[in-house]
Amino acid sequence: MSDIVALRKAQPRIREFALIRTLARRFARRTTQLIRGIGDDAAVLASPTQGWWHVTTDLLAEGIHFDMRTASLESVGYRAAMVNLSDIAAMGAVPRYVLISLAMPSNFGTRQTIQLYTGLMKACRPRHVILIGGDTSASKAGLFVSLTILGTTKSRRALFRHGARVGDDIYVTGTLGDSLAGLQLLARVPSTRPSRRVFSPLRASHKNFLINRHLHPAARLAEGQWLNNTRLATAAIDLSDGLSGDLRHLCEESRVGAEIELNTLPISAACRGYAKSRHMDAALIALRGGEDYELLFSAAPMKRASIARHARARGFHVTRIGTIRPRRFGMQMNTPDGTLKPIPNMSYEHFC
Amino acid sequence: MSDIVALRKAQPRIREFALIRTLARRFARRTTQLIRGIGDDAAVLASPTQGWWHVTTDLLAEGIHFDMRTASLESVGYRAAMVNLSDIAAMGAVPRYVLISLAMPSNFGTRQTIQLYTGLMKACRPRHVILIGGDTSASKAGLFVSLTILGTTKSRRALFRHGARVGDDIYVTGTLGDSLAGLQLLARVPSTRPSRRVFSPLRASHKNFLINRHLHPAARLAEGQWLNNTRLATAAIDLSDGLSGDLRHLCEESRVGAEIELNTLPISAACRGYAKSRHMDAALIALRGGEDYELLFSAAPMKRASIARHARARGFHVTRIGTIRPRRFGMQMNTPDGTLKPIPNMSYEHFC
Repeated sequence: MSDIVALRKAQPRIREFALIRTLARRFARRTTQLIRGIGDDAAVLASPTQGWWHVTTDLLAEGIHFDMRTASLESVGYRAAMVNLSDIAAMGAVPRYVLISLAMPSNFGTRQTIQLYTGLMKACRPRHVILIGGDTSASKAGLFVSLTILGTTKSRRALFRHGARVGDDIYVTGTLGDSLAGLQLLARVPSTRPSRRVFSPLRASHKNFLINRHLHPAARLAEGQWLNNTRLATAAIDLSDGLSGDLRHLCEESRVGAEIELNTLPISAACRGYAKSRHMDAALIALRGGEDYELLFSAAPMKRASIARHARARGFHVTRIGTIRPRRFGMQMNTPDGTLKPIPNMSYEHFC
Repeated sequence: MSDIVALRKAQPRIREFALIRTLARRFARRTTQLIRGIGDDAAVLASPTQGWWHVTTDLLAEGIHFDMRTASLESVGYRAAMVNLSDIAAMGAVPRYVLISLAMPSNFGTRQTIQLYTGLMKACRPRHVILIGGDTSASKAGLFVSLTILGTTKSRRALFRHGARVGDDIYVTGTLGDSLAGLQLLARVPSTRPSRRVFSPLRASHKNFLINRHLHPAARLAEGQWLNNTRLATAAIDLSDGLSGDLRHLCEESRVGAEIELNTLPISAACRGYAKSRHMDAALIALRGGEDYELLFSAAPMKRASIARHARARGFHVTRIGTIRPRRFGMQMNTPDGTLKPIPNMSYEHFC
């Protein structure tokens, strides 16, 4: 055996299997639809008799999507799950199963891995999303987390990006820009204005709110399922790249243009406070800001009263922010001074 | 807008979308079961009316699973696909859909991405596996490729790891150790014997065969589907970590032991030639070698004639290499000198 032993200093695979068993014991659950989860070559699922499967994958890379100097492993796991859950929300589907691929630097041990999984499951477990598989590997440099989530819809129906029609209203859920403000606070991005004098310092409660919105976003699953089940929306997308970027994607897929009322964008008091403290325009933070994981959707104007009534009854925060226009109109915004300007083409850039 | 522009030098997300469109045009295909592929928040699939879904994910990390000094991007894409296809083969399922998550170093452009996808699709397209989604990101250091493959079985049946029974025969498909020999040739691993004199140099055709087996392995999909559909196998696993490692996993899941006849291990002429040229024991290379992506399976002794007849008729290469023993027997091998020795616990270690 000595011939081929010590071919190279290797990542002990045998430890991987012990780790997988630990993780499976700790995090896996069974359902009647799940024939086999962790522990075989593939996870095995019984098909629902009707309806659709929705499958999405997203990865987070260290130094690009997160910075280990400001983010905990638990928040990385949590956000990795939420990015994917948000895609499922934007389809109007119910998330069911998650698979996780991890490449971990050499200083990672069982403790770090469990921290990451703990964050992942903090996002997944309350939503009854079951861990059914994954892969772990060493990484020469940096942490990589790639998730795949499978969701279902009972009926053969989904919120696609391509259904928006000219004349439709444009809505968003929640408030916009909080996550970008939180990221800038975490990264201590200095104000770009020459004056260093801060006229209105940011309240601690606002600061905490914004940082929490960045580190612990919430996918709008209930809102997505509501819009899909009631057929109220004609198209939807989640806001991961920011309103200006994701509205463009929805319009491209629907082959339409859009007009946004800049002063209607829903902005939290915390984000307004942040903008004021930095001498920035809060509406522009809301327009550009990414990783809010709110939903952007279009709906026929005749559904306006129905949407308002439903949203109120369910406690959903929904704001009408504009109108779908013909494609040749392009992407424009009404500014508070009454002029119509092109929406700048500036997708949100992730951490670095 | 100047307030928040240039938050940081960013990976241009907008290029990602152009790239995704290019890739979708070039690599995506439609089927009646695929409601929506690339271009929305998630891929949407109609459920087959009966049968099971099989889902697997595996990642390849630069410097761990491949070395860009010896591997082409095309071969990395190809191998990433094959690793996952092999898991689907080990379930006896038919692979249907693939999603790819990529983290790419900054020197990667469209050309490199397309090379990688070309390799991926060279593995997927002949097997009618359709690209339905993915995610791309920048990487601070090194290339990471994470794939998820979904497969189906028509009936509610699969080849699990946990079905092996005491007295069952143990089989493998193909030949073992070729990939490890190919890797050692690529990495120019020196012979570990003190003598530098080579008595029997390796033929060029053998060298090429072994390197090709490492760079272009073939998942045993037809063999897996045959074993599942005919119910000939009681348990199965694919050989990614090597016979000594993967047999251990199968035995652990089945709560049994195993006895292997070392001199029955199927070894190619090329691998024998390689072993001879390095003064190594070919059987030990076969026992340890990983990434062969052959299938290891167990079957009742009464199926022996049936398996031989079926395999001959279908042109499958199948070799009986041992017997399932009670758990207390452990994992032992009969060596050519007639002694019974414990099978060393040495899973295959990936590239570094």
